[in-house]
Amino acid sequence: MDKREILKHVDHTLLTTTATWEQVKQLCDEGIRFCTASVCIPPCYVKKASAYVGDRLKICTVIGFPNGYASTAAKVFETEDAIRAGADEIDMVINLGMVKQGDWDAVTEEIRAVKASCSGRVLKVIVEACQLTQDEKVAACHAVSKAGADFIKTSTGFSTGGATLLDAALFHTTVAPGVRVKAAGGIRSWEDAQAFLELGVDRLGTSALVGLAKKEEL
Amino acid sequence: MDKREILKHVDHTLLTTTATWEQVKQLCDEGIRFCTASVCIPPCYVKKASAYVGDRLKICTVIGFPNGYASTAAKVFETEDAIRAGADEIDMVINLGMVKQGDWDAVTEEIRAVKASCSGRVLKVIVEACQLTQDEKVAACHAVSKAGADFIKTSTGFSTGGATLLDAALFHTTVAPGVRVKAAGGIRSWEDAQAFLELGVDRLGTSALVGLAKKEEL
Repeated sequence: MDKREILKHVDHTLLTTTATWEQVKQLCDEGIRFCTASVCIPPCYVKKASAYVGDRLKICTVIGFPNGYASTAAKVFETEDAIRAGADEIDMVINLGMVKQGDWDAVTEEIRAVKASCSGRVLKVIVEACQLTQDEKVAACHAVSKAGADFIKTSTGFSTGGATLLDAALFHTTVAPGVRVKAAGGIRSWEDAQAFLELGVDRLGTSALVGLAKKEEL
Repeated sequence: MDKREILKHVDHTLLTTTATWEQVKQLCDEGIRFCTASVCIPPCYVKKASAYVGDRLKICTVIGFPNGYASTAAKVFETEDAIRAGADEIDMVINLGMVKQGDWDAVTEEIRAVKASCSGRVLKVIVEACQLTQDEKVAACHAVSKAGADFIKTSTGFSTGGATLLDAALFHTTVAPGVRVKAAGGIRSWEDAQAFLELGVDRLGTSALVGLAKKEEL
């Protein structure tokens, strides 16, 4: 698979707690240069980044991130605030406490509430696969599908594990038609990327691939 | 120091991403039984916990947690939402990107904005000491003091390190009079607790001490 083609599937990501505007600006420059699907950045930088990139690049940000236990009202407000600031894509974290209680109706309702506040923008739902049992992974696919989200996303990158090929394959075959899969966490090589894409994954959350592209002067 | 006296300084804490209401309820029962200063719980459980404990226990929750890079507007909304739900104490995380850019005015303004939305409730400001240089630690003490917060808190427990005695001592001697210190992260024994309290620390964020008190049938 062509490397430039792979980069079109990348959400070029910087979510380090200490990230500065200078670093986010550089991320945006790289995203534009390598035609990534988006840059994925902290909410506090969305307004500045959106003004900086204009129509040249999509801005993705994170909601209720990374722990997922903010109130639904707070997640909804944060989503509206991010969209007002110029976000094109929203990556929200589900409430894992609700999951562990088996309260899938509440999980679904929360996703639905955030989707309703997205004003038609893309919503990706991070289910933090490394914290889920196999049954919970399947139930999460159904909740995300039922709630009308656009993507299921494997991981925040802040928990005990990242994306695995097995989870990506399970998600791809279990979500409703039209729901896409984003793999994030631990994707560090072109080979990793290709393996996920060949499984039907649509989007990759990583910073490493643009790093490689720069080194290889792609 | 008497163990029951030590427990009065404890924010009995459960901030695991997968925490369920059953676990939070048990935490509340333990907080009441051992007369802790508060329970520190995820925002999504504040309403239920507040109704459950009534006047028997204070409820503390976390804002912009643990990464600190939510927008100021989102932190303010989350604070108001938590207080409406019944929170008595608010532990917010500062924006570490602003810190790394040296933009201390912005850090101070954000703390001030959250304090203004606290309706007189206690505000603790988590500065994530393990991510700060010595100069930044001192500057953080000044920002927290200037903004009128009630406490400076060492750590989220989700980064690379927890509370150290050296940081606690530095904070205690550097903050303005009236600003108290909360140490959190890695406090696991009565000896740890006593060491922090002897340095002048006022509050300890931990779940281990109540665990020990239960084992010892205190």
